[in-house]
Amino acid sequence: VQAILIGGDIVNHNDSCSDTSRGRALDQSINHSREIYDRLVQIVGHKGVVTDPQRIEAMTTAWRDGWPSEPAFVVQPASTAEVQSLVSLCVSSGLSIVSQGGNTGMAGGALPRAGQRDLLLSMSRMNKIRAIDLDDDMIVADAGCILDQVREAAAEVGRLFPLSLGAQGSCTIGGNVATNAGGIHVLRYGQMRELVAGLEVVLADGRLWNGLRRLRKDNSGYDLKHLFIGSEGTLGIVTAAVLKLSAIPTQSVTTIVAVREPAHALAWLRRLRRRFAVQLTACELIEQICVSITLRRMPDLSFPILNKFPWYVLSEISTFNPSEDVETAVAEEFSEALVADEVADGATASSLKQAKNLWRLRESIADAHRMEGVSFKHDISVPISMVPKFISLTMQRLSERMPGIRSFSFGHLGDGNVHFNPLQAADEPAEKWRGRLAEVNRITHDTAIELGGSISAEHGIGQLRRSELLHYKGGLDLELMTRVKTALDPGNLLNPGKVLYEK
Amino acid sequence: VQAILIGGDIVNHNDSCSDTSRGRALDQSINHSREIYDRLVQIVGHKGVVTDPQRIEAMTTAWRDGWPSEPAFVVQPASTAEVQSLVSLCVSSGLSIVSQGGNTGMAGGALPRAGQRDLLLSMSRMNKIRAIDLDDDMIVADAGCILDQVREAAAEVGRLFPLSLGAQGSCTIGGNVATNAGGIHVLRYGQMRELVAGLEVVLADGRLWNGLRRLRKDNSGYDLKHLFIGSEGTLGIVTAAVLKLSAIPTQSVTTIVAVREPAHALAWLRRLRRRFAVQLTACELIEQICVSITLRRMPDLSFPILNKFPWYVLSEISTFNPSEDVETAVAEEFSEALVADEVADGATASSLKQAKNLWRLRESIADAHRMEGVSFKHDISVPISMVPKFISLTMQRLSERMPGIRSFSFGHLGDGNVHFNPLQAADEPAEKWRGRLAEVNRITHDTAIELGGSISAEHGIGQLRRSELLHYKGGLDLELMTRVKTALDPGNLLNPGKVLYEK
Repeated sequence: VQAILIGGDIVNHNDSCSDTSRGRALDQSINHSREIYDRLVQIVGHKGVVTDPQRIEAMTTAWRDGWPSEPAFVVQPASTAEVQSLVSLCVSSGLSIVSQGGNTGMAGGALPRAGQRDLLLSMSRMNKIRAIDLDDDMIVADAGCILDQVREAAAEVGRLFPLSLGAQGSCTIGGNVATNAGGIHVLRYGQMRELVAGLEVVLADGRLWNGLRRLRKDNSGYDLKHLFIGSEGTLGIVTAAVLKLSAIPTQSVTTIVAVREPAHALAWLRRLRRRFAVQLTACELIEQICVSITLRRMPDLSFPILNKFPWYVLSEISTFNPSEDVETAVAEEFSEALVADEVADGATASSLKQAKNLWRLRESIADAHRMEGVSFKHDISVPISMVPKFISLTMQRLSERMPGIRSFSFGHLGDGNVHFNPLQAADEPAEKWRGRLAEVNRITHDTAIELGGSISAEHGIGQLRRSELLHYKGGLDLELMTRVKTALDPGNLLNPGKVLYEK
Repeated sequence: VQAILIGGDIVNHNDSCSDTSRGRALDQSINHSREIYDRLVQIVGHKGVVTDPQRIEAMTTAWRDGWPSEPAFVVQPASTAEVQSLVSLCVSSGLSIVSQGGNTGMAGGALPRAGQRDLLLSMSRMNKIRAIDLDDDMIVADAGCILDQVREAAAEVGRLFPLSLGAQGSCTIGGNVATNAGGIHVLRYGQMRELVAGLEVVLADGRLWNGLRRLRKDNSGYDLKHLFIGSEGTLGIVTAAVLKLSAIPTQSVTTIVAVREPAHALAWLRRLRRRFAVQLTACELIEQICVSITLRRMPDLSFPILNKFPWYVLSEISTFNPSEDVETAVAEEFSEALVADEVADGATASSLKQAKNLWRLRESIADAHRMEGVSFKHDISVPISMVPKFISLTMQRLSERMPGIRSFSFGHLGDGNVHFNPLQAADEPAEKWRGRLAEVNRITHDTAIELGGSISAEHGIGQLRRSELLHYKGGLDLELMTRVKTALDPGNLLNPGKVLYEK
C-alpha cells in the first residue's frame, strides 16, 4: 500500500471516510490526491515518488533555523523531460513547485511551506556530468550534481571549478545557480553568476528554455540567464548549467595573521592586494571567539598562533609560477606591517596539511556556532572600506541596549561580506535572548543599509528575509521585481511565498 | 528665430500654412511641435535643445552602415532630474526616446528612426566623474563620460579600468553599459557586465531607479541591474554607473606570432593559457589581409614581421611582478611551438612604443576596412575550439557560391569572437557584391549557429540584426524577451524598433 502525503500527514490509500459532508470533502480530496499521486507515478515512476517519512523529514528539515514545512508530494525526477511533465501536471492540478538541491540553504528558500499544496521537486537524481569540454574550459552539469562532484570532475582533468563554500559536499549546482552562491574565492573568481556560461531552464508553463551555450560572449538580445541566476527558484527551474573552468594554480600559500582590530585587517587586505593583485585568491576575517568555539567543538583541528588576539585574517595567495617565492614576499609584507603596528602575530602554513587544517577550521565556524546554541546570524555586505565601521557601530548600538552582548563575526573580508552572528551576554537566559531576534536584526540591518550595504550578501532572501526585504527595499524595487515575476510566472506556480510575498 | 525639427525637416517658427485641411493639420502639427519644443526648453534650457543641422547630422550619421535617421527633437540634458522630466514629457506627448552616447554603435541601436516621433536624448553633457573610491576600487561615472576619460581618471590614481576597445576615445560609459561592451581585455576582465557594480537608471515612466551601490556581493532579491545591462536602451535609460577598478599590472609584454592556419592560432592560445593562465590579458587573431590593408591606409604604422604569413596572433601578457622574466618564457613557448611546426615567425615588442604601435594597428583594422569600400561585417562568436572550423567552413560555403571571395577575419580569439568581414572577389563589381549581403549574412550566421554560436558577440542587435534575431532565436526566446520588455516598458517608449520589432 502506497502512502500519500496530504498537508504533511501520511494518508493510507485504503483509508475510508465517514458519510458526512466533511467526510465527502475529505474523500474527494483524497481521491484528488490519489489521482495526482497516480499521475506523478506515471511521470517519474514509483522510484521517483518519495513517501518514506524519514527521507521526507531530511528534505524538509532545515540545516539551521526552522520553518514549518509539509510538502503535498515529494518527487525526484530523473530527467529534464520529467521536470517538464511535472510542471504541466502542477499547472493543471493547482500545485505549486518548490525545487530543492542539497537542502543546505540558509534562508528557507528551498523548503515547501506548511498547509499549502507545494510539490517538493528534489533534483538529487539528476546528477550527471553531461560533458567536459577541455578545449573551451567548460563543464556541463545536471542541476542535481553536488558541487564537490563538479570540483572533482574538473580536478581530474586538470582544471579548477573555483566555487568553494562550507556546504560543497552536499549543496548542488542548481542550488548554487538559484542562490548565486558565493564562498571564499569570490574576490578572485566571482560569484556563481560569473561562472555560468549557459543554463537549461524549465519555465513556469512547462516549456524548456535551452540556453546551454558554451560561449564567452553573446549579445544577441536580452541575456535571459541572468534573470534565473539568483532568483531562488521563483522564475524557472534550472535543470542544467554550463560552467566555466579555470586553470589550477601551481602554488598556493595560506597565511594567517593576528590583528587587534578590523581596521588593521583591512590594512592587511590592502597590503596583500597591492603586492599580489589577482594572485590573492581568498581573504577571510575571523574573530577570536569563532576560533576558540570551533577548536572546542572540533578537537581534531589545530591553530598555529598560540597567543590570543582579537581578530585574524586568513588568506590564500595562488600563482601559476611554482618558482615564485610567495612566502618571502608575504614575510616582507608582514615585517612592514609589524613595524606599522598593523599585525601582531602570524604564520604561514608550511605544508598542504596545515593549510587544509586552516581552511577546514574556517569552514567549520558556522557548524560550531550552530552547535553552540541560540545564535542570531546575518549575512550582510557593505563596501569593503566600511567593514570595520560596520562591526564597531553595530556592536556599539547593540551593546547600548543589550550590555554584555558578544560579537561573533567572520566572513569574506575581500568581498565586504560579514557573517555577523552576535551571541547573548554570558548571563542572559536563552529565552530572553530568543525574544530579541527582531531587535538585533533591525539594528544590524539598519547599520548595514546606512553604510550603503545589503541585508543579504550570499544567502539570499528565501523565507528568512522576506519581511526585511519589504522593509529595506524601496517600493520601486519591489514593484519591478514583482513585474519580472509576473512576466515569467504569471500563475505564481514557482516557489510562491519565497523572496517576495504572495500576491 | 528657433528652428524645430519635424521628421527631419527644419521648420521655421514663422512658417505659415495655406488654408486647406492639409494645411490646418500641418499647422496643428507645428503648433504641437512648438508646444513640445517650448517644454523641452523649459526642461533643459536653450543650451540643451540642439537645432544646429550640422550637429544633428553628426548625431544621426552612423560611423558605418547607414540607417535613415531623423529625430523629431534632439536634447542634451545636464542632469538625471532633467532626464526624468524629459521621459515624463515624452510619455504625455507621445514621443519615443532614443538615448545615445558617442554614436559609435555598430548596429544602429542608438539612432533615431526616420518618420517617427523619436526624441534623441544625447547624454554627452552628463560627463562628470562623480566619485573615485580607492578604498573599494570603484569609480562612479555619469553615463555620458567618455570611456577614455574613465580610463584616464582611473590611471591618474593608479588604477586600471580594463574595458578597452577601438572606439574608446569617443564611446561613452552609458553606451558601454547599454551594449555590454567587449573589446580586447574580455578574456581576462570580462565584458562591461562584469565591470559594473551599480547603476542609476531612469525608467520608462520617469521614475528613478537608484542602484548605485558599491558592493561586491548583493543577493537581496532579483539583481535588476542585469536587466538593463546589454538591453540597448530598450528597458531603461542608464544615467550613471559604479564601475570596478583593477590594479595596474607592473609589466606588460606584447608578442605577435605568425601562423599558417587558425588551428595553429588556437594551439598558440592554448600554450599561452597553459603557461600564463590569468596573466594572459589579450589574445587577438588577425588575418594577413587585415594587416596589409591597414598598413596601406595608415602609413605611420609599422609591422615587425617582414615575411608574409596567412595569419597572426597578437597577445599581451601582464604580470604584477616586474622581475618575472616573461620574455624568456614566451621565447621558450615559441621555440617549442616552432619545433611542433605551429608557428612560423614571431616578434616581441621591445619597447612600449613598439607595443603601442601593434595595438594601434589592431584597433585600426575596422577603420581601414571601412575605408576600403564595400564590405560586409559580422560579429559572431562560437565556442573557442570552433573558431578554426567556423572560418574554414564559412569560407568554403561562401566560395562555392561566390568563387574568389576573400576572407577578411580578425577578432578576439580568446573569447571565440570573430569579426568575419569577407571582401568580394577582386573582379566582382561593387553593385553585384552589394546585392549579395543577405546571402553572405545567411551563410555566415547559419554556420555560427550550427557550431553553437551567436550572431552578435559584442555589437548588439540594434536595427542591424533584428530580422536575423527573429530568424535565429527560438520563438520562446523572443516571447520571453517581449515579456520582459512589456514588464519594464509597457508603453514601448524606450528605443522602440530596436532589438525587438515593435509590437
